Amino acid sequence: MVNMSTDPTFLLLLLGLLVIMSNYGHFSSALRMPPIVVDVKKRQADAEINCSECKGPVYSLGLNTYQVPMALHELNRARLVQSMLEKLDSSSSSSSSSSRGVILLEGGKQTTRYDTDHEPVFRQESFFHWTFGVPEADVYGTISLPSGESTLFVPIYGLDYEIFCGSSPSLDNIRSKYGVDNVLPIDQLDDYIASQLDGSVDGINEDDDNGNVNDAQLHLLSGLNTDSGNYCMAAHYDGIEKYSKRRNTDTLFPTIVEARVFKTKPEIELMRYTNWVSSMAHVEVMKCCQVKMMEYQLESLFQHYTYTHGGCRHQSYTCVCACGPSPSILHYGHAGRPNDRQLLDGDIALLDMGAEYHCYASDITCSFPVNGKFSDDQLLIYNAVLSAQIAVITTLKPGISYLDMHRLAERAILKSLKNGGLLLGEVDDMIDADLGAIFMPHGLGHLIGLDAHDVGGYTETITRPRSERPGLKKLRTARTLEAGMVLTIEPGCYFIDVLLDLALANPKQSKHLCVERVNEFRGSGGVRLEDDVVITDDGCENLTVCPRASSEVLDVMNGKPWPPEKDVLPELRRNWVNNDNGKMVRYDL
Amino acid sequence: MVNMSTDPTFLLLLLGLLVIMSNYGHFSSALRMPPIVVDVKKRQADAEINCSECKGPVYSLGLNTYQVPMALHELNRARLVQSMLEKLDSSSSSSSSSSRGVILLEGGKQTTRYDTDHEPVFRQESFFHWTFGVPEADVYGTISLPSGESTLFVPIYGLDYEIFCGSSPSLDNIRSKYGVDNVLPIDQLDDYIASQLDGSVDGINEDDDNGNVNDAQLHLLSGLNTDSGNYCMAAHYDGIEKYSKRRNTDTLFPTIVEARVFKTKPEIELMRYTNWVSSMAHVEVMKCCQVKMMEYQLESLFQHYTYTHGGCRHQSYTCVCACGPSPSILHYGHAGRPNDRQLLDGDIALLDMGAEYHCYASDITCSFPVNGKFSDDQLLIYNAVLSAQIAVITTLKPGISYLDMHRLAERAILKSLKNGGLLLGEVDDMIDADLGAIFMPHGLGHLIGLDAHDVGGYTETITRPRSERPGLKKLRTARTLEAGMVLTIEPGCYFIDVLLDLALANPKQSKHLCVERVNEFRGSGGVRLEDDVVITDDGCENLTVCPRASSEVLDVMNGKPWPPEKDVLPELRRNWVNNDNGKMVRYDL
Repeated sequence: MVNMSTDPTFLLLLLGLLVIMSNYGHFSSALRMPPIVVDVKKRQADAEINCSECKGPVYSLGLNTYQVPMALHELNRARLVQSMLEKLDSSSSSSSSSSRGVILLEGGKQTTRYDTDHEPVFRQESFFHWTFGVPEADVYGTISLPSGESTLFVPIYGLDYEIFCGSSPSLDNIRSKYGVDNVLPIDQLDDYIASQLDGSVDGINEDDDNGNVNDAQLHLLSGLNTDSGNYCMAAHYDGIEKYSKRRNTDTLFPTIVEARVFKTKPEIELMRYTNWVSSMAHVEVMKCCQVKMMEYQLESLFQHYTYTHGGCRHQSYTCVCACGPSPSILHYGHAGRPNDRQLLDGDIALLDMGAEYHCYASDITCSFPVNGKFSDDQLLIYNAVLSAQIAVITTLKPGISYLDMHRLAERAILKSLKNGGLLLGEVDDMIDADLGAIFMPHGLGHLIGLDAHDVGGYTETITRPRSERPGLKKLRTARTLEAGMVLTIEPGCYFIDVLLDLALANPKQSKHLCVERVNEFRGSGGVRLEDDVVITDDGCENLTVCPRASSEVLDVMNGKPWPPEKDVLPELRRNWVNNDNGKMVRYDL
Repeated sequence: MVNMSTDPTFLLLLLGLLVIMSNYGHFSSALRMPPIVVDVKKRQADAEINCSECKGPVYSLGLNTYQVPMALHELNRARLVQSMLEKLDSSSSSSSSSSRGVILLEGGKQTTRYDTDHEPVFRQESFFHWTFGVPEADVYGTISLPSGESTLFVPIYGLDYEIFCGSSPSLDNIRSKYGVDNVLPIDQLDDYIASQLDGSVDGINEDDDNGNVNDAQLHLLSGLNTDSGNYCMAAHYDGIEKYSKRRNTDTLFPTIVEARVFKTKPEIELMRYTNWVSSMAHVEVMKCCQVKMMEYQLESLFQHYTYTHGGCRHQSYTCVCACGPSPSILHYGHAGRPNDRQLLDGDIALLDMGAEYHCYASDITCSFPVNGKFSDDQLLIYNAVLSAQIAVITTLKPGISYLDMHRLAERAILKSLKNGGLLLGEVDDMIDADLGAIFMPHGLGHLIGLDAHDVGGYTETITRPRSERPGLKKLRTARTLEAGMVLTIEPGCYFIDVLLDLALANPKQSKHLCVERVNEFRGSGGVRLEDDVVITDDGCENLTVCPRASSEVLDVMNGKPWPPEKDVLPELRRNWVNNDNGKMVRYDL
C-alpha cells in the first residue's frame, strides 16, 4: 500500500484541496458571514449539559477519585470564544471580518534538571490546561474563530520512544479522550495555521478580487502575571514568524485571564473535591501529630494522604509546616527553611498545605497546638484569627471590595489583641497607623484556580491599582467581588521580631503596644486559618471543610470522628460533602 | 558608628589593600612559587580525617537521619584542586604559573513554573553540590588555585525577604555551617575574582616589570552531558565578560567529571544510607501491596516512607510503578503514563524507585507478583533475570569492561529463556543476531552518584566510543571498571510487542524464537532487578539490601521480617547495615 503521508502525488492533491477549501470551504466560510455566535452558544449549552450529566470523556485516576468531565474544558473554550468574539466585534469597524482567525496555545514542554536527563514530573501550563485539559507535554492547541472548532497537535514519536515511554494512542483515540473536534500530527500545525488565515504553504492570501478584506488574525497569549512579575510568552514554533502581520497579542491574554477569574459549575465542583481531599488530609495530620515528630513528617503524611486517597500527584504549592517560632516565617518550607524543626511540647503548628487534582488547586491552612492543648494565650490568638475569618465570611457577597475585607480582618484581629491586653487605644487609630500589617503583613487572600495564586488579581481595565499601604500592598487582588470568583480567606496573626521592633521604633504604632504583654508572645510564631470560598449570588460557599472552632480542633486531635455530628460554626458556611464514587455529594449535618 | 560597607573612605582603603595584597599578599603568593601541593595534600588529609571521625559541621534532617560530614565536600574540593594542578602543570610549558587562578561555580537558581510565582522545591545543581554541599539557591562558589581556598558568595536579602522567607544567618554562621574558608556577600564576587586574577576593579594587571608572567586563569564549567545531550553552562554574572582573556573552559569540566566518577569513602557511606532507606521502603511497599490497589499508591507509599523515615525530600527520579503489561514500557510513570493502572490478580509489579538524601541518589528495582504467588512462567523470567544479576555481580572487579558485563547479562537471560523453551539454538548465535536487545533493549546499568545517571559515562579521552549495536548502544558507559566507581546493575527481561514483531520479521532472530511459547508471554510485562554496587579493589560491594531470591520476596510479602535470619544469596554481596543514630553500621547475618 502506498504510504500516503510521503507520496508526493498525495501531498500535491492535499495541498490543492487545502487551497480550494481555503477559498470556498469551511475554513473561510465566515469571510462573507457574521460570526457564528449561534454555534458558539450551542457549543456552550451542550458543554454545560455534558458537564452536569457527566457525559462524554472524563479524567479520573481510578478507584473513587473524582471524575472530571472533559466537557469542563469544552465549556471553557466556548466561553473564551464567546468573549473573544464580543471583544473583537466591539473593537472592529467592519462588522465581522476581524472576528475571523485562530487562537494558538502552546502546551508546556518536558524539562530536564540543569544539564542532566533528570525529568521532573511534568505539570501542564495552566492556560493550556484550562483550555484543553491535556496533562501531557509538547502539545499545541488551536481554536478557530468564529466557529470555535478545537484542534490538538500532538507529537508523533518513533520506535525508541515507544519502547521507553509507551506507544502513542491513535489520533482518533486522543480526540475521544479529550473531547476536542480534531487531532492532527504536530508537523501539520503550520499548514493548519496557514489555512485558518486563508493561506496555504505558499503564503497568506491577502484581500481577494471582490474587495473582501482578509484580516483573519493569529491570536497569541502574551501578558504580565501580576503575582510573579513574569511574562506569559506567546506560542512559538519554527516558521510562525511569517504570520507577523496577522499576529494579535492584545486580545487573547486579557480575555482568557478574565474568563479564568470566573469559575464555572464543573470547575467549582472539581475545586470542592480538591478541598475535600486536602481537608481530610489536614484532619489526618492533626490526628497523627505528636510532640517530637519533625515538621517534614507532617508534610510527608499530607502528601501521601492526598495522593493515595485522592489521586493528587502534585501539591498546589510547597507545604508550609511551621511549628513553634517557625510560623513567623510566612513562606517557611522552602529549601533554605525545609520544614526541619522538631515539634516541641507547647508549640503551635501552622500547616499551610493544599493538593491539586487535574491541575485545580486547593490552599488550606490549619493551626493547632501540637500537644493537643491550647494555652490561654494560644487560644487568644487562635480566636482572634477565627473571629476575623468569621467576620469576613459572613460579609462576603457580590459588590463587596476585597480591600475592605482585608481591613475587616485586620480590625477583628486588632480588637481581639486589644481585648487580650496586647494593644491600647482605638482600633481606628491603629488602622490609620498601619498596625494591622505588623501582625498580619500579608494580604487577606487571593484568587485561586489552576494556580494557587490565580491570574486576574490586577488587570489593566477593571481593577483599581495596587495600594501602597503596608498590608494592603501585599493583597494579590483589589477587585470588587462577583459571583463565581473563588478566593482564599486567610487571616493570620504573627509575632515577627523585626516587625515588632519597627513598630516599637515608630511612635504612631508604639503608643498602641503594651510592650511587656506583646513581648510575652515573641517567639511563639503565629496562627493562620485559611479557607477557599466561592462567591455566590447572595453570599459565599466555603469549599474547605476543616475543623475550625477550637473545640473541633481538640476533638479531632483526641480521636473524635470528622465531620462532627453538629456544625457548631454554621457562620463559616462549610459545605459538608462526601465523595460518592468520584462525585461530590452534599449533605447536612 | 560609621556604616563601613558604604563609607567611601573605607571602600578606598579596602581597594588599596586589595591592590597591595594582589601584588604582595597571599592572593598572588604562588606567582613566584611552585603550586602549594603540600597545602592541598594537607587539606585532603584533614578532610579524610574529618570525614572518618565525623568532625566539623554535618548535614542531617534530624531524628536518626544520616549525619553527612560537610568535610565530604572539603575532600571533594581538595581532590579537585589536586587534579586541576596536575593537569595544568602537565599542560604548561612554564613550570607553575598557569596553575594560578580561580575556579568559579554557579549554584542553581530558584525557578518558577511557567509565568506563575509557583516555586518548585529547589534542588541544587549537582556539580555545585558535589563541590560545596549547599542546598540553597542563588549562591556562587570559588576555589583559589593553587591554594585550594574556598569561598561562598551568598545573596543578602532585605526586610521583605526576612518576613516571608526567614532571616539570613550571619556570614560567619554560613561559614561554620558549610565548612568553607570564607563567605562573602554576592556583590563582592566580581572584586574577588579580579583579585584572584591579580587585578582590581580597574582591570586586570598583566605581566609585571620584573618579567613575571601573569596568566592566572578563570576556570569555568562547560561541557556535554552524555546522558542528556545537554550542555553544562559556564557560570555567569553581569561583568564577568571582562575576564574573557583569562577564561578557561577546557580544564575544569573533564577534571571534575572524572573526580565525580570515583566516589570517596564518605560518599559511599552516604549512598549506603540512601540505598538502605530505599531498600527498606521497597520492603514496606512489598508488604503493603495488594491486588486492586493502584500503581500510584505504591509510588505514594514509597515516597512517604523515604521522606518520613529517611528525610529524603526528593526522589532520584520519577517512580516507575509498572504492573501487568506496564513493565514493557521502560520509563513508565511519566505524565503520559502516570502509574494509573489498577493491580490485578496475576500481575507482576516492577517497581523502579530510589530516593536521594543530601542530593546523593539511589536507584533500585524490585519485581514481585502482586498476589504474593509466582506462576511457573513468572518464576522462569524472574530467575532468568536473577541469574544475570548474580553472574554480573560475582564477576565485577577492577579491569573488567562494562560492555562485557552487559553481554554477560544478556547471555544469562538468553540461556534461561532457552531452558524455559522460549528460544532455540546456540546462545552465541543469538548474541551475534542481537537477540539480547529484543528482551533487554536497555543498557545493563549506569554510573550513579549525585545524579541517577551520573556523569562520566563517556569522556573524550579515556573511554571507548559508544557502540552502535542494539542494546550496547543504550549503555550509558563503556568504561573499564575501576575501584571507587558506583554503578547500577539492572538486568531485565521484557516482552515488548513491537520488538517481538521486529524479531519475527528478522530471519536471523526469528529462527531462535519458539513463537507459540514466546507469544504466551506477550502482555505479561517483564522483570527487572536493580542493585547499586561499588567496585572495590578485588570485587564489589552491593549497597542495595532488598529481597532478591524469590523465596525472600515471598517471605516478605507473607509478613516475615526483613532482613532475614540467613543470607541465602551471599553471591549478591549485599552488605547488611543498620542506621545507628545517623551512622551506617554493618553487621553479619
